[in-house]
Amino acid sequence: MPEPSLAPPLHPYYPIEAQIVGYLANEWNTLELCSMFAAGCAAIFSVTYAVVKRVRPSTSASDLITILWFVLCGCIHLFFEGYFAYNFRRMGGMQDLFGQLWKEYSLSDSRYLTQDAFVLCMETITAAFWGPLSFVTAAFITIDHPLRHAFQIVVSLGQLYGDVLYYATCMFDHYILDLSYSRPEAAYFWGYFVFMNSFWIVIPLYLLCSSAGATWRAFEALDKADKILKGKAGAVNGSAKKRL
Amino acid sequence: MPEPSLAPPLHPYYPIEAQIVGYLANEWNTLELCSMFAAGCAAIFSVTYAVVKRVRPSTSASDLITILWFVLCGCIHLFFEGYFAYNFRRMGGMQDLFGQLWKEYSLSDSRYLTQDAFVLCMETITAAFWGPLSFVTAAFITIDHPLRHAFQIVVSLGQLYGDVLYYATCMFDHYILDLSYSRPEAAYFWGYFVFMNSFWIVIPLYLLCSSAGATWRAFEALDKADKILKGKAGAVNGSAKKRL
Repeated sequence: MPEPSLAPPLHPYYPIEAQIVGYLANEWNTLELCSMFAAGCAAIFSVTYAVVKRVRPSTSASDLITILWFVLCGCIHLFFEGYFAYNFRRMGGMQDLFGQLWKEYSLSDSRYLTQDAFVLCMETITAAFWGPLSFVTAAFITIDHPLRHAFQIVVSLGQLYGDVLYYATCMFDHYILDLSYSRPEAAYFWGYFVFMNSFWIVIPLYLLCSSAGATWRAFEALDKADKILKGKAGAVNGSAKKRL
Repeated sequence: MPEPSLAPPLHPYYPIEAQIVGYLANEWNTLELCSMFAAGCAAIFSVTYAVVKRVRPSTSASDLITILWFVLCGCIHLFFEGYFAYNFRRMGGMQDLFGQLWKEYSLSDSRYLTQDAFVLCMETITAAFWGPLSFVTAAFITIDHPLRHAFQIVVSLGQLYGDVLYYATCMFDHYILDLSYSRPEAAYFWGYFVFMNSFWIVIPLYLLCSSAGATWRAFEALDKADKILKGKAGAVNGSAKKRL
């Protein structure tokens, strides 16, 4: 009988000694799962595009792209990450589409299968807050609501901070504790963990700066209008004084 | 010789089996440390109050209180939390004022002495970003800069999200893993962990809503001004058309 430490791992995840409750191997392969995920994103984009073009045909291209982004985020945060937050105790054995997608992604980060405190808390907040608020932001952009930029700043910073912490806690465990959660193949670490999550660094950072710039210009314009009005009032007072 | 598990713990922190590298007991007691912390806060408030009253005597009471808050946050984030982020590997043996203050606070959360990945990452981001940005926000409020509200939203949400995750990861370990980081005396858990951190839930939430409201009113005022100008332009066009 082999030593327990020499026995082959019962799952494909790293670290190989990770405890994954009730693990069942995926039935769909990587290509099938990635294709289904891409098809889901394409469907979300198509429906959103059609709705926005109907509700407000005059929407600018940049606003339209931002709406598509926030609707995609809303769906991913609320449904996909919400699925994880709801099922976190039994992720290893989930065999429906979302379950298999999470098990595929977890090849790059096994914390999704091992009930990690930070990942669960961050994902729960993302699902409960940034998910619904992403839809609200998309709606606010569509109707050009005055709260649009405040919401865009809040949701984008929430995504950005969560993602930075997500990378940082993993890097800490990698460099300080010498503990890696990704399989050694470069495609998993660089393709899933780094590349997929980098969207939620780059795009929120751009949208955050863009909305901060818009509020800057808005308050500057109001200041100018205020000074012009005060100047006019001053001139009226001045000419009234001259008449007296 | 007693069993290792029955030996008294070498430190006063929970869980009692926590490994604290190079632990040295504090030389100042709780009252002395709390008094010095309170004196530090009072000094920060006094200097800030004097500077603001000199730079802009017309500052409103609510703006003045907000400036005091952000300067206090800037000092705590940058210097006190920055001290932790810089010294996280050797916190157990630090005997200067900040070191002893952290060891006193850690009675309610030993993760500060055990190189916890989430606590270190969150504190490093807080020190590196919310610290300097708190000072910038305080300065922007003092000079009534048009970016004031955007910065207030960013810093407040950063503090709020960090604090919610801080509470949540601790609650997860407490309820799911049955692992408590606080000493059992109520004063530590409720006084230090819950009460002291609750300031960074309540105040940022209020300031976030307040600044979101201000940007709402700003964009609404600009929309109205835009419509009035368009209306006037329309009326001018209309009367011009009549003359033709």
